[in-house]
Amino acid sequence: MTLFDPAAVAAAPEGPSLRVRLTVAYDGTDFRGFAVQKTVPTVGGVLTEALSKVLGHPVELTCAGRTDAGVHAWGQVVSFDCYDEDVDLELVQRSINKMLGPPIVIRDAAVAAHDFNARHSARGRRYRYTVLNTPVQDPFTAKTAWHVDAPLDLRAMQLACDPLIGEHDFRSFCRQPSGHEPGPLVRRVRAATWVDLEDGRMRFDIEANAFCQQMVRALVGVLVEVGIGKRRAGEVTGILRAGNRSAAGQLAPPHGLCLWEVLY
Amino acid sequence: MTLFDPAAVAAAPEGPSLRVRLTVAYDGTDFRGFAVQKTVPTVGGVLTEALSKVLGHPVELTCAGRTDAGVHAWGQVVSFDCYDEDVDLELVQRSINKMLGPPIVIRDAAVAAHDFNARHSARGRRYRYTVLNTPVQDPFTAKTAWHVDAPLDLRAMQLACDPLIGEHDFRSFCRQPSGHEPGPLVRRVRAATWVDLEDGRMRFDIEANAFCQQMVRALVGVLVEVGIGKRRAGEVTGILRAGNRSAAGQLAPPHGLCLWEVLY
Repeated sequence: MTLFDPAAVAAAPEGPSLRVRLTVAYDGTDFRGFAVQKTVPTVGGVLTEALSKVLGHPVELTCAGRTDAGVHAWGQVVSFDCYDEDVDLELVQRSINKMLGPPIVIRDAAVAAHDFNARHSARGRRYRYTVLNTPVQDPFTAKTAWHVDAPLDLRAMQLACDPLIGEHDFRSFCRQPSGHEPGPLVRRVRAATWVDLEDGRMRFDIEANAFCQQMVRALVGVLVEVGIGKRRAGEVTGILRAGNRSAAGQLAPPHGLCLWEVLY
Repeated sequence: MTLFDPAAVAAAPEGPSLRVRLTVAYDGTDFRGFAVQKTVPTVGGVLTEALSKVLGHPVELTCAGRTDAGVHAWGQVVSFDCYDEDVDLELVQRSINKMLGPPIVIRDAAVAAHDFNARHSARGRRYRYTVLNTPVQDPFTAKTAWHVDAPLDLRAMQLACDPLIGEHDFRSFCRQPSGHEPGPLVRRVRAATWVDLEDGRMRFDIEANAFCQQMVRALVGVLVEVGIGKRRAGEVTGILRAGNRSAAGQLAPPHGLCLWEVLY
């Protein structure tokens, strides 16, 4: 895998352009997250490089959710400007999928409104976290589900979701920003549900207007502690109110998490 | 991954022994099949080495189905003799899963009857082949499903299965043995069905008393050609009767295939 150096890209050309919107799925296992970094392979890095090659001009991507290292996506959305007004987006999609697939796949490519911005136009995000709750591991879900061997109480985990619904300051469930004051950490959670997939897997779906960094993994860490009986469902309200990251404890591992869908 | 040299293992100890039966799942992606080979990593090789280490004596494995390179298993069964009559099989299972998991996982370990033989006691095998039939690839099924982008006619593929049911000489669907006369290639197919999983995947389940080498992949190769309209369903009878491997054409790739279950 070659690394992408953002500094090596010349300024974008001038002239008329199209705003393009891509829906991208990726297996995050071998990437250091989405956001472009100079020294390590990232989804945004390899995607920017491939698009720049195929389109023949520098490309600057905006993404809906900057997933962390090891986190997957089914419905990541990115936007960028294309300076070829006659571009064949189906051909671009096929070329990129040939270059980057199967770990990275463009599921859809379309022309968007000129003011569309994958990040700022989004009115919500849905994340999905999968737990494999069986006594022994499964070779086929090992990269997409967190294996928890202790039996989980799904009803307790669902009950513990209730206090999360609505608008709250989620600083107890966010990565501590270092060296400076954090930005606003108030988010509106619209839905949070656990489903038993009845094949050993339990799935957590959560929708919010936006998420703080590591928020879903911190939430799942606490909810699974409730599920194994290490915490009571009633403790979640207290953790939210504490306003302190140390109240929530361990993060769930990244490989169970998937950016499922972005809502516009 | 260290390689296992079967010649380096001393003769099995003498004395009373237990016949042990394991149910093993594995992701075959990084293995050159099940059967032990001196120079390449195989599932049987690493499993034999790990069991010999944990039990403290040489182990000779018998398996129900010698899967080819890249083929997966959910319900492979192996048997061997254990010379420690007080062995704690749960502990053995946990130790092996720690050493070899997640790509290789022992799902179950039990003491079997003294005359149990994973290969010769089996009265049937079930294989499962998964096809992803969508215009674009999916990062999450890329290692367990064959991606076919042309739309498949499931009813035609199901119709083409009819002539396979029953006892037939399957030499048209077997790997050509080199340098010597093939063994008997008559097999009894008990069931062969296609199911639309309605998430883009189509699944082929086939049960027979036993299978010839590459038989399921050769069958799926022909059935998918029927599904995309390259052959008619009625051609399958002629291919069976031809008694010639060249009649069947392309093999389906190994990564869509999984040894699902062994029947005793």
